[in-house]
Amino acid sequence: MGSLVSNAVETWKELKKIGEDDPRKIVHSFKVGVALTIVSMFYYFRPLYQGMGQAGMWAILTVVVVFEFTVGGTLSKSINRGFATLVAGALGVAAEYVADLCGKNGEPILLGVLVFLLAAVCTFARFLPSVKKKYDYGVMIFILTFTLVAVSGYRIEEILTLAHQRLATILIGGATCIVISVFVCPVWAGQDLHNLVASNIDKLAAFLQGYGEQFLGGESGKAAAAEEEEEKPFLLLQSVLNSKATEENLANFAWWEPCHGRFGFGHPWMMYLKIATLCRECAYLIQTLNASSSSHSTNPTATDIFRQIRELCRKICMESSQVLRELSTSIRTATFRSPATTETYRDELKSLIESSSFQLRDNVPLLVVAFV
Amino acid sequence: MGSLVSNAVETWKELKKIGEDDPRKIVHSFKVGVALTIVSMFYYFRPLYQGMGQAGMWAILTVVVVFEFTVGGTLSKSINRGFATLVAGALGVAAEYVADLCGKNGEPILLGVLVFLLAAVCTFARFLPSVKKKYDYGVMIFILTFTLVAVSGYRIEEILTLAHQRLATILIGGATCIVISVFVCPVWAGQDLHNLVASNIDKLAAFLQGYGEQFLGGESGKAAAAEEEEEKPFLLLQSVLNSKATEENLANFAWWEPCHGRFGFGHPWMMYLKIATLCRECAYLIQTLNASSSSHSTNPTATDIFRQIRELCRKICMESSQVLRELSTSIRTATFRSPATTETYRDELKSLIESSSFQLRDNVPLLVVAFV
Repeated sequence: MGSLVSNAVETWKELKKIGEDDPRKIVHSFKVGVALTIVSMFYYFRPLYQGMGQAGMWAILTVVVVFEFTVGGTLSKSINRGFATLVAGALGVAAEYVADLCGKNGEPILLGVLVFLLAAVCTFARFLPSVKKKYDYGVMIFILTFTLVAVSGYRIEEILTLAHQRLATILIGGATCIVISVFVCPVWAGQDLHNLVASNIDKLAAFLQGYGEQFLGGESGKAAAAEEEEEKPFLLLQSVLNSKATEENLANFAWWEPCHGRFGFGHPWMMYLKIATLCRECAYLIQTLNASSSSHSTNPTATDIFRQIRELCRKICMESSQVLRELSTSIRTATFRSPATTETYRDELKSLIESSSFQLRDNVPLLVVAFV
Repeated sequence: MGSLVSNAVETWKELKKIGEDDPRKIVHSFKVGVALTIVSMFYYFRPLYQGMGQAGMWAILTVVVVFEFTVGGTLSKSINRGFATLVAGALGVAAEYVADLCGKNGEPILLGVLVFLLAAVCTFARFLPSVKKKYDYGVMIFILTFTLVAVSGYRIEEILTLAHQRLATILIGGATCIVISVFVCPVWAGQDLHNLVASNIDKLAAFLQGYGEQFLGGESGKAAAAEEEEEKPFLLLQSVLNSKATEENLANFAWWEPCHGRFGFGHPWMMYLKIATLCRECAYLIQTLNASSSSHSTNPTATDIFRQIRELCRKICMESSQVLRELSTSIRTATFRSPATTETYRDELKSLIESSSFQLRDNVPLLVVAFV
C-alpha cells in the first residue's frame, strides 16, 4: 500500500516535470480532449444513422488515431488515412464487382485470393524504407479498407452509400484534428527541428566551455566544482548523442507541413539532419577527448605533458565554444552572420593549433566539423 | 513514361534485395495474408451478425493493426489491445450508468466532461517515458473504447451484448495473429537482438582488422585495395552507429516474449542495450582514430612519426580485433569462454601499449571498452 502511494507520488512528480519542461504538452492534451468531445457530441446529438452506428464510430476512431503532437504528424496521418481510404475503397468496390461476375461459388474464392495477395504484397512493401518513412500508416489503412469493403458482402449500391458516409465521417474527424492542431497553439515539427539542432550546437558549446574552465582552468577550479557538476555536462553530451531518432521523426513530419513562420514549403529539412549528424560526430569527438584527458590523470608522465599544454587546450576549447555559439546563433536567426567573425576565430584557432604540438592533433577533426 | 518504368524497376530491385537480405520478411508478408484471409473468410461465411456488421469488422481491424514482424511486437499489441478494451469498456459502461442517473439534460454534459477529462489525462500520460515505451498503444485503445462505449447512447443491456460480441471478435483476431506468429516460422525479437549485438561487435572487429591490414600494413597493400574498398568498411561502422533505435525496439518487444530457445522469461534484455551502448562508443572511438590517422597524411612531420609507430598500431588493431571476435563468439554461444584466452590477449596488449609512445594513448579508451 505504502509503495503504491510512493509510486503514485513518483509518477505525479514525473508528470509535473514533463509539464514544466514543455507546457505545450499540457496544451496538446487539452486539444485532444476538445477535439474528441466536439466530435463525439456532434454524433451524440445527431441520431441520423441509427443511433451511433458505424459512421460516428469512424469519426471518433479517426480523431483518436490521427491527432499527433506536431502539426506535421497530424497532417501526415490524416492525409495518409483519407487518401488510402479513398483508393482502397474504390479498389474494393471493383473487386466486389468482378467477384460478383464469378457466380455464387467463385466469389468467395476470388475474394479470398485477392485479399491474400493484396495483404501480402502491401505488407512486404511496408519494409521499403521510403514507404516506411512516409506512408506506413497509409498502407495499413489501405489493407484494412480494401478487406473491409471487399468482404463486406454488400451489393454495390449499398457499398456506395456506406462509402459516402464513411468518407464524410473520416473527413469530419480529420478536419477537426487539423483545424485544432493548426490554429490552436500549433506545434510545428519544423520549428522544433530548427530549435533542436540549434540548441544541440549550443549544448556542445556549453560543454566545451565548461570543460575548458573546469578541467583545464586550474586545480582550484576543478576541485571546487568537480563533484557536483560532474554529471550535468556529461548529460548535455548524452542528450546530443541520443537525439538522432527525434530529429529524424521531426524531419519526416516537417516534410508534411505547409508554410509557417519563416519556413516555406519545400524547406530543405534534410539539411538539418546533415547538420545534426555532424553535430553528433562532433559530440563523440568531444567525448573521446574527455575520456582520453581523464585517463591522463592516472599516468604521471602524461600529467606532466598535459600540464604543459593545458593553457593551449583551454584556449582552443574556449575558441571552439565561441565558434559553435556563433554557428548556433546564425542557425537560430537564419541569417548568415558576417563570415568575418567566424573567420577571425578560425584564424586564431589555426595559429593556435600550428603552434601546438602533435598532442593536440586530435582536436583537428573537431574543428573541421565545427567549420563545415 | 520511361521514368515510371525505371522507377518501377528500381523499386522491384530494392524489394528483391530486401527479400534476399532477410527472407523472413517474405514469410512474414505471407503470414499476414493468411491471417487476414482466414479471419475475413470466417466472417464472410458466418452471416450471423446481420451480414458483416460490426463484429467481423473488428476482427479484421485487429489483425491488420496487431500483426507485427516479431512475436514480441504482436504479443505486445494484442495484449495491450485486449486489456485496454476490457478496462475501458467496463469504465464506459459505468460512465453510461452514472450519466443515466443525471436525467435527460445532465447526461450529455456529464458524458462530454468525462470524455474530455479522460482523453486529456490519458494523452498527457502518453508522454511518460515508461508508458510510451510499453503501453502507448494500449492507452490509445483505452481512450477510443471508452469514448465509443460512453457516447454510444445504447442502454446498458444492449451495451453488454455488444461488448460481449466485440471482445469475442477481438479475441479471435488477436488469437489468430498470435498463433500464426508464434507457430509459423516465428521471428523472436529476443533472438534478433542477441544476434544484432553479437554481429555489431563482429563488424567492429572486421573493421579494425581491415583497417590494420589496409592502412597500416604497408603502402603497397594500401594503394591496391584502398579505392574500391574504402566505402565498405565505413558502412560497417555506420551500421553499428545507427542501430540504436532498432536495438531499443527489439529490447522492448523481447520483454513481451515467452521462453523460447535458450532465452528464459525475464531474460536480462536491458543488459544487451548496455553492451550495445558500449559497442557504439567503441565505434565512435574507432571512427575518431580513423579520422585522425587519415589527417596525418597531409602533414609531413606527422607522417614521419606515423611511420615509426605503424607496426605497433597494426599489432594493436589486430589484437583488439581478435579480442572483439572472441567477445562476439562468447555472446553468440552464450558461454563464458575460458577467460584465459582473453587475458592472454589483454596482457599482450598491455605490454604493447606500455612499450609504445604517448601517441598511442588514444587507443587506451578503446581497449578499456573492449574489456568491459
